[in-house]
Amino acid sequence: MELQLPYETNLKRYGRKTEALFHAIRDSIMSGRIPPGSRLPSTRALAGQYGLSRGTVNAVYDMLQAQGYVRTRPGSGTVAAGTGGHLHAAKRDVRGEAAMSRWGERIRALPDAAGDAAGPPDDSSGGRGAGGGTEVAGGASGAPAVIDFTPGRVALSHFPVKEWNRLLYAQVRNQYRLERADAHAAEGHRPLREAIARHLRRTRGIDAAPEDVFVTGGSHQALVLLIHLLLDPGEAAAVENPCYGGTVRAIRAAGGRVIPCPVDRSGLVTEALPASAKLIVVTPGRQFPTGAVMPLERRLALLDHAERHRCFVIEDDYDSEFRFRGRPVEPLKALDRTGRVAFVGTFSRTMMQDIRLGYAVVPPALADAFRKAKQLFEPHPAAVLEQRALAAFLNGGGYERHLRRMRRRYMKLCERFESLLAKRAGRALFVHPNDAGLYVYAEWKHSAASFPRFLAACARRRLLVRDLAGTYVENPKPALALGFAHLEEDEMEEGVSRLAGALEEALS
Amino acid sequence: MELQLPYETNLKRYGRKTEALFHAIRDSIMSGRIPPGSRLPSTRALAGQYGLSRGTVNAVYDMLQAQGYVRTRPGSGTVAAGTGGHLHAAKRDVRGEAAMSRWGERIRALPDAAGDAAGPPDDSSGGRGAGGGTEVAGGASGAPAVIDFTPGRVALSHFPVKEWNRLLYAQVRNQYRLERADAHAAEGHRPLREAIARHLRRTRGIDAAPEDVFVTGGSHQALVLLIHLLLDPGEAAAVENPCYGGTVRAIRAAGGRVIPCPVDRSGLVTEALPASAKLIVVTPGRQFPTGAVMPLERRLALLDHAERHRCFVIEDDYDSEFRFRGRPVEPLKALDRTGRVAFVGTFSRTMMQDIRLGYAVVPPALADAFRKAKQLFEPHPAAVLEQRALAAFLNGGGYERHLRRMRRRYMKLCERFESLLAKRAGRALFVHPNDAGLYVYAEWKHSAASFPRFLAACARRRLLVRDLAGTYVENPKPALALGFAHLEEDEMEEGVSRLAGALEEALS
Repeated sequence: MELQLPYETNLKRYGRKTEALFHAIRDSIMSGRIPPGSRLPSTRALAGQYGLSRGTVNAVYDMLQAQGYVRTRPGSGTVAAGTGGHLHAAKRDVRGEAAMSRWGERIRALPDAAGDAAGPPDDSSGGRGAGGGTEVAGGASGAPAVIDFTPGRVALSHFPVKEWNRLLYAQVRNQYRLERADAHAAEGHRPLREAIARHLRRTRGIDAAPEDVFVTGGSHQALVLLIHLLLDPGEAAAVENPCYGGTVRAIRAAGGRVIPCPVDRSGLVTEALPASAKLIVVTPGRQFPTGAVMPLERRLALLDHAERHRCFVIEDDYDSEFRFRGRPVEPLKALDRTGRVAFVGTFSRTMMQDIRLGYAVVPPALADAFRKAKQLFEPHPAAVLEQRALAAFLNGGGYERHLRRMRRRYMKLCERFESLLAKRAGRALFVHPNDAGLYVYAEWKHSAASFPRFLAACARRRLLVRDLAGTYVENPKPALALGFAHLEEDEMEEGVSRLAGALEEALS
Repeated sequence: MELQLPYETNLKRYGRKTEALFHAIRDSIMSGRIPPGSRLPSTRALAGQYGLSRGTVNAVYDMLQAQGYVRTRPGSGTVAAGTGGHLHAAKRDVRGEAAMSRWGERIRALPDAAGDAAGPPDDSSGGRGAGGGTEVAGGASGAPAVIDFTPGRVALSHFPVKEWNRLLYAQVRNQYRLERADAHAAEGHRPLREAIARHLRRTRGIDAAPEDVFVTGGSHQALVLLIHLLLDPGEAAAVENPCYGGTVRAIRAAGGRVIPCPVDRSGLVTEALPASAKLIVVTPGRQFPTGAVMPLERRLALLDHAERHRCFVIEDDYDSEFRFRGRPVEPLKALDRTGRVAFVGTFSRTMMQDIRLGYAVVPPALADAFRKAKQLFEPHPAAVLEQRALAAFLNGGGYERHLRRMRRRYMKLCERFESLLAKRAGRALFVHPNDAGLYVYAEWKHSAASFPRFLAACARRRLLVRDLAGTYVENPKPALALGFAHLEEDEMEEGVSRLAGALEEALS
């Protein structure tokens, strides 16, 4: 019998004769082209047929036998094994329905969190506002350069690149010596946890032990783990309206009911908090996205509510390190005396987006469960090089120097931006006064109907802005977030000019 | 009124006068030492009292007012604000019970996954067997050096350090230019997904599109996400007995029932699979921890079972890249024609433990849900530097060169280890023949009662071994995993000598 084998195609695919012959015979057996029980050619015959050495064919037959594709019977040579008919059927369409868990079904029903990363330029919002926020891009090739007002980016050109790289290089060099440390530190590199605890004590008045600090893969991960630890399907969680889309996604993933609460110029309206909420997720340091700072009285009222109704508070401090006016307001976590507040922060905004390191400061009653939840999803610390470099950056003072420098820069940029916007776009955009953060919140003063015209006019001018419609759980208002942190002044001016042009067009 | 303020302690704590005074007054108001409504000293008086400039005191009063701690009334000076009595109570014990979700309660009830990282040397098992596996250490200071047979470590001294560091350095240098790419690629760096797909096609016969490949924070994360996507509370999941403790933890976290199935020298006994199992988690390439390789017939029977009972299979390919005898057996994933198999792999074992990168190849029907689950826990790719460097390592051929080199080394080491163990410990340990992996599985031939004596005798000799008791869901057998991959030959010999001594002692 001269066996017709797909040898050549396999040789092309695998490069080596042994592999090619093995796969050629194996595929023929699996596809039924060599039926079960049929005898394979002798090694001599096959070697002759394909110009191979007998040693090669022998090796392949041994491999086939070792893996059960063929049987060798004394006297009867090599025989194809039965495959139970399993694979004789033609390859079917594999897009069958997977029966998923209720959690899986909820996950599948979530909106996709990623922006349209395919279109140039990428969504680089850092996740804030990505939950439904729309980016508007447009313009033909040859058109002027895109000006990008979408928030979340930082001024990388002002990042202490050399200093940070030096720290990373040192970690790369040292990683082999350090390998055994941290092996199971799902909760994060210990020196980094200590450095974060010190930083929070000094700059935010949070009196946390390193054991209460957990390093996470971005602050979003901390939010998700906390929400899953605290919220059962059907239970209510109060959020700000508008709020970060990732919070809403995480609550829905846990099966919770999202209760939107109104926000005013002092942040979440605590009187509107429902007694039924088991969990409150709030951004008191700088309300996302309106930028409102919650005053002390309201913070205390919020804590009172939480204590009275035995609910838990997640304080998402996503963007208040760059406070350039006034003083950092005391976090809820620093005011909390009953262990009801978890504080969540991030380095992605203060350093750069690629640093996917965030942290949670959790109350002692939750620490054990949080550590185990972190272990479950990531038994080993992620981004070990960055964790170690970051600990050195914090401990060496480089991080605070960077914050101080950037705070000055952002203050200047923000003042310039606000004044430009007031002058050129004041008739259509009400820009909330801003004393921290990397973007401004601008309300559209005109009808909701005219807002899409404005967005389209921005797009035609190759101006990227973030529509905040997606941050509203209900009653959306026409509003924009305009990021300035990554811009140089001339870009900013050009962008505001285009903005002015767009609103002229929309309102005419 | 001369106000007694905790100024000195705060000065020590914060370093700067403004901060110290702010916190001193703030704390006094919050603690009730300065009662609500009471008048604060004039700025002149306070400045005089503490030897400060009036400008400093004025700035502090402004800060206090901005944050609502004091009110300034024209004519009546500065007055402490009410704090609603909230914080007047003495600081209470904050270790209250947190009311957690059912998921949270399950997580809290899990055993801690981390080994006792405090004791020298650390558990560095890479998580395999950490679920209850015991490490035995001991010996007084001045005693001989510890010999560590615990598995999971790799021969770092043979890792191509220079090549890998060069790739990492390049990523560190380039990171600022690349920042916008990958911003939302929770599913992993696209070139890495492509490189893994190519690698799996060439070396394992898995025909996966890059879209089906998801980069995860270690293979454990892939397991956990898949299990949560597929398993509802109360549903049954079949596992091997013994198996990886992390699998059991993940099933229990999802609320699933763990059904242990027996393992023989051909791996999971498929006849024992319960019809009720909605999910099967299996290690066919190299059964963990026994090292058994599942032959083709049984693989096909497993797939048949899965199809008949409409259940899903997770193929945990944790340790079969280093196959040094025979040929890699075709993964279930390559044999699967109905989209019921997810394949999970890792680079932590083939490269080093610090590389916390694993991956899942999921069937198309699950891809959307898996991506969203990954997004939920980590909306941005983790360990971006390593992901990019790894893509370059795979594409440049460095990874496969490394695998080939290490395969030869590990084969030699394994043969030497097996022969030493047979000669010196054969009367007490049955070492299963091993054709892949980084450790050997050794069964204790004597009574279960004598096994703890043996472990204690190892500890006294400063010999670390891994007791596999914790890998059994039921009917534990006395057995050890003995890692050899990270050892030099002389260490190995010394270790086996101590092992021989320990069993002499235990059996005498």
